[in-house]
Amino acid sequence: MADRTQSSGILRPLAAIEAFCRQILTASGADRPTAEAATRAMMHGTCHGIDSHGVRLLAHYVKGLVEGRLNPRPKLTLANSLGAVASLDADNAHGALATYTAMDHATRLAGEFGIGAIAVRNSSHFGPAGAYAIDAAERGFIGFAFCNSDSFVRLHDGAMRFHGTNPIACAVPVKGQNPWLFDMATSAVPYNRVQLYRSLGRELPAGVASDERGYDTRDPQIADMLAPLGGEFGFKGAGLAGIAEILSAVLTGMKLSVDIAPMPGPDFSTPRGLGAFVIALKPGAFLDIDSFDAAMTRYLDTLRNSPAREGFKVMAPGDREWAVAAQRQKAGVELDPVTVESFKALGAAYGINAPV
Amino acid sequence: MADRTQSSGILRPLAAIEAFCRQILTASGADRPTAEAATRAMMHGTCHGIDSHGVRLLAHYVKGLVEGRLNPRPKLTLANSLGAVASLDADNAHGALATYTAMDHATRLAGEFGIGAIAVRNSSHFGPAGAYAIDAAERGFIGFAFCNSDSFVRLHDGAMRFHGTNPIACAVPVKGQNPWLFDMATSAVPYNRVQLYRSLGRELPAGVASDERGYDTRDPQIADMLAPLGGEFGFKGAGLAGIAEILSAVLTGMKLSVDIAPMPGPDFSTPRGLGAFVIALKPGAFLDIDSFDAAMTRYLDTLRNSPAREGFKVMAPGDREWAVAAQRQKAGVELDPVTVESFKALGAAYGINAPV
Repeated sequence: MADRTQSSGILRPLAAIEAFCRQILTASGADRPTAEAATRAMMHGTCHGIDSHGVRLLAHYVKGLVEGRLNPRPKLTLANSLGAVASLDADNAHGALATYTAMDHATRLAGEFGIGAIAVRNSSHFGPAGAYAIDAAERGFIGFAFCNSDSFVRLHDGAMRFHGTNPIACAVPVKGQNPWLFDMATSAVPYNRVQLYRSLGRELPAGVASDERGYDTRDPQIADMLAPLGGEFGFKGAGLAGIAEILSAVLTGMKLSVDIAPMPGPDFSTPRGLGAFVIALKPGAFLDIDSFDAAMTRYLDTLRNSPAREGFKVMAPGDREWAVAAQRQKAGVELDPVTVESFKALGAAYGINAPV
Repeated sequence: MADRTQSSGILRPLAAIEAFCRQILTASGADRPTAEAATRAMMHGTCHGIDSHGVRLLAHYVKGLVEGRLNPRPKLTLANSLGAVASLDADNAHGALATYTAMDHATRLAGEFGIGAIAVRNSSHFGPAGAYAIDAAERGFIGFAFCNSDSFVRLHDGAMRFHGTNPIACAVPVKGQNPWLFDMATSAVPYNRVQLYRSLGRELPAGVASDERGYDTRDPQIADMLAPLGGEFGFKGAGLAGIAEILSAVLTGMKLSVDIAPMPGPDFSTPRGLGAFVIALKPGAFLDIDSFDAAMTRYLDTLRNSPAREGFKVMAPGDREWAVAAQRQKAGVELDPVTVESFKALGAAYGINAPV
């Protein structure tokens, strides 16, 4: 969801935005793999309409690279490798480089063993989880990506920020089509939804945020934490967040959400000790690939053609994102005013023309 | 949740109930592995307070074994084995035998390769998904279990029963404690909640069920299908159901939920062609086991001691179930009237004393 509150109406080509991100990251000291991976992950967000995890993060990442939170020239090393799994020490790399690298290893292992999993250590904010799941799907594998993050979400019946928005993403290859693509926060809504409603003076939906005592509120001004997905069945959202937390923090030896330094600082010089976790599966290792392709196609055909509520159409996970991507690839994207200003400032600082 | 509408107040020992289930299954023609596995899965439900998936299913399973839906003497075979994954053809076994066997293979593979996954073919209703996840955790592995089932749940914006309640279960070993145990339906509520509220004449919670046009209703009499988890964010529940569907039906070559014959019949002679999917991970393959144990313990300590809403206490997934189990192991369990009657009828039919 875009968190802009006013519209400029100006559409800018994705290619120009992408080139600017890559140039700025490089100018700020990032090595080539870092600049490529961070740009790719941000462009996944901006291209598919996941603007909260798109190029609005460029200035944030540059600050981290310059001040020391992120290692601009990391040496990633694979450790504890046992058969189909390994740990990847990301040397405080940008989270996109860490996680694309992890998925690369996971798919390699899945190609050999049918499944592969990588626990990522010493990583950092990785942006949109779906970017890594889809990276697997585009190469013919089912991909899962998980991470935890600084605390924003209460537990069921809880009264403190405990888990991060701890996303779970999964993508599945579909022959001749875009992948099935599912990327969810385990909170009821993203935190920037609360911020947006605050600036718009709008009431929040019921059951998505709480005051500091853990009681649901629809007033964005007094909303202090997010609710876990599920409303009165919030133990489900909290349990799903727990899966992401256990895989990403416990199984990696990295920080629990409650121990992670806040993403917006003020400290931008200390690595945050984030973990992440990816899994890849090779469909052809479980049944012949033609049967898999036919079954996946039939599942999606059945789903997309199933009866909907009057005035609605049923969509598969990802369908909305693919439609946005097609539109933006053709017509360009409108950046929010805060991002436009940050691009101007970055362009001026590094002597690079901003696409604004 | 128990779906009893009246209380007898009589507590019966778990051991007597367990022995009765085993004897009845054996008398109905089940071989020893089938009787053991089905009893064990049902007792997981009854012991932990998941009564909808407990021994109330005994009569249902006996009918399936006698009339041919279930193979009482199946020959399970492992196929398509590649490194850390395999398909298991369950020969229309009881789902508990199929899935315990699958988890046995998955943990064996995880022991060797760090992770293992088994796609289960030609299985049947497996009862509580958590039974198989916990089977892994009790042996020191992180376990996941998934299945799909006959359609009860609409899609987001949908107006037909599309997915089953498609559960996702995960269990994680905790040194010196009961495992972390998470077992959720991807629907907002279980279908027997609707049935219970119908018989009690109570209003349903908002956003958990829909009429036949896909519109939310709180009237259990006109509720025709369940909503996916998430209320107005039901695309999340529908996507999670999709993960279970893709792993359990597509990746196994088994039936989509929309194609599965109804669990309650009338046909009890035709195998239903259900799939399931299990994954096991070996924590010690990702980091040293002492660090894992310490991190998991700290995570749970932090969670259980975190601030709660006034009058509440925060619980970890499984805590409620372990408390019920401790109480029932000590005091016995009260069976609902329908189950008591079915036990009497089964006891009379097979000449075995029912514990009622």
